[in-house]
Amino acid sequence: MRLEDILTQIAPAEQRAMAEAKRRWDAVAHPLNSLGMLETDVIRIAGMTGSPYIDISKRAVVVMCADNGVVEEGVTQTGQEVTALVTENMSTGDTSVCRMSHVAGADVIPVDIGVARPVKGGKIRQKNIRRGTANMTQGPAMTREEAERAILTGVELVGELKKQGYRLLATGEMGIGNTTTSSAVVSVLLRQEPADVTGRGAGLSTEGLRLKIRAIETAIAVNRPDPADGLDVLHKVGGLDIAGLAGVFLGGAYHHIPVLVDGFISSAAALVAASLCPGVKDYMLGSHASNEPAGKLVLEALGLTPFLYAGMCLGEGTGAVAVMPLLDMGLAVYREMCTFEATNIEAYQPLT
Amino acid sequence: MRLEDILTQIAPAEQRAMAEAKRRWDAVAHPLNSLGMLETDVIRIAGMTGSPYIDISKRAVVVMCADNGVVEEGVTQTGQEVTALVTENMSTGDTSVCRMSHVAGADVIPVDIGVARPVKGGKIRQKNIRRGTANMTQGPAMTREEAERAILTGVELVGELKKQGYRLLATGEMGIGNTTTSSAVVSVLLRQEPADVTGRGAGLSTEGLRLKIRAIETAIAVNRPDPADGLDVLHKVGGLDIAGLAGVFLGGAYHHIPVLVDGFISSAAALVAASLCPGVKDYMLGSHASNEPAGKLVLEALGLTPFLYAGMCLGEGTGAVAVMPLLDMGLAVYREMCTFEATNIEAYQPLT
Repeated sequence: MRLEDILTQIAPAEQRAMAEAKRRWDAVAHPLNSLGMLETDVIRIAGMTGSPYIDISKRAVVVMCADNGVVEEGVTQTGQEVTALVTENMSTGDTSVCRMSHVAGADVIPVDIGVARPVKGGKIRQKNIRRGTANMTQGPAMTREEAERAILTGVELVGELKKQGYRLLATGEMGIGNTTTSSAVVSVLLRQEPADVTGRGAGLSTEGLRLKIRAIETAIAVNRPDPADGLDVLHKVGGLDIAGLAGVFLGGAYHHIPVLVDGFISSAAALVAASLCPGVKDYMLGSHASNEPAGKLVLEALGLTPFLYAGMCLGEGTGAVAVMPLLDMGLAVYREMCTFEATNIEAYQPLT
Repeated sequence: MRLEDILTQIAPAEQRAMAEAKRRWDAVAHPLNSLGMLETDVIRIAGMTGSPYIDISKRAVVVMCADNGVVEEGVTQTGQEVTALVTENMSTGDTSVCRMSHVAGADVIPVDIGVARPVKGGKIRQKNIRRGTANMTQGPAMTREEAERAILTGVELVGELKKQGYRLLATGEMGIGNTTTSSAVVSVLLRQEPADVTGRGAGLSTEGLRLKIRAIETAIAVNRPDPADGLDVLHKVGGLDIAGLAGVFLGGAYHHIPVLVDGFISSAAALVAASLCPGVKDYMLGSHASNEPAGKLVLEALGLTPFLYAGMCLGEGTGAVAVMPLLDMGLAVYREMCTFEATNIEAYQPLT
């Protein structure tokens, strides 16, 4: 499989299926559009899958795990060893996203795409591209070829999961230092000053925030990534988790599987995917609003409106998993609710 | 049971249980406060129930159903007969909130608190106070005594439900014309012009909106409700559904059961309850942001922050039921997640 072939074969969402889903909603005995984004998301899923008959019951959150060389610059509160520990905890169920996914009926699929040391755990997909990236303040985080392989790993994983019956995916990540790489990627792709798109991640001090911004500025100055070339940006100032997730978004579009965007890191990956192929946005679903300062900006660039504003900033895919039951509830009304015709209730009229 | 006794016996949320719940969250292996409002809501529930050991698995949405005499003024798109039809559909499971509650694991408890004609259905609680209110543009919607009885019906229902094991309640309503009465109540209690707190409800035309505002202005001019006396406002320009729901909020506080506020009508009822007893606010949980223009204003007055912004405006309690799985997910992390101590991960430090 070549990345170029994937990018050229991504088709827009199917308008006919969306129109059929919209007709179904308008026939359901309820005030027009009164379930808001639960309605529009069901319609969009119909467009992604090409059918108004929707089943998203088998679902998973793909958690791309990787280390980032930039942590040498003191940009995080937590040591790099935590990435491997939490990755292993994903396999045993001892992470926040595992506990939440259990409620949401989703499987957790941790992927070692670039953890610094070998990780053990029966559920972990062993897809390590390299044992952590290089320090991007001194040169490219990885080679262009490594970034491309990480993307293709994500694409291929979606293909496998589709064969296993999965019909809805969420995007999660674990990687100490990955809000730094995400801010770097967003800064370049959206042509914003690093200071304007960099936040405190998992609770960074003011001095830590200063170091983080400086590291991003240095990485961009040293590597001079080309904003018009997503792969150039990704391999120079990105991370392997971001690359893997960009692949999951592209794989979702390629295989007609809806993919939920999570918080800041996931949306940075979505931005990379969209820079490689704008059509991929048709297959993304919004979830929650990140607390990171640039969260809103990135979602706007992707054309997504989040609907959960709970001040969550845990990562791991928790925000994306959190909205799955909301989609289930929208779908339950869409599929099971009686129509105006079946009741004795006159249909509501569109607003005049 | 006298209303006055209820009001004087409502105690504030228990600070010790909240402090214990907060300690538990801070011990859970995750970045501090990173689940945002999912954390604060769990802490608040601990305060309501008086214990950090929380079980909200048995839950229901109480749907107060009533008709409003003000519909004679042309303030709605839909005829009054729809109230009874939908109330009966609540019993057979054929409403949006029924389909969503099934996903959320909640029972639907429809209450005929004031429907204009007798309604049939095994699940409907027959608590009719009167067969619809009078037209409030010509005098009080109901007597003060009727309003008080409707409130007590709500309080008593919560007591019954607690005995049956329910530990979380959502507030829903069905009543053609009830955004009109809600806007009237909010206008008086928050001392706002009717035009500023009145919206299109379930899709009203511009001409309909004009009639609606005029009806509210007339009702207030004719009845001169006293903003300092919630019961006076309620019986003159309110409705029986609002009164019943105010009772559910008071009953929640009295019986230490958390109650989820839904959209505009539910929050107007919460405002009435808070005007009778400010301490009741400790027992309310926010859910979604209503599309009605005054929705935000009312929630602010209640000290509540909604976290779901999906543009929902269906009523029936759908917004309150929608957030139940989010509470479950917060609680799953709170209860099941390992602690920093149990992992080899150093605890995150508070922001300095």
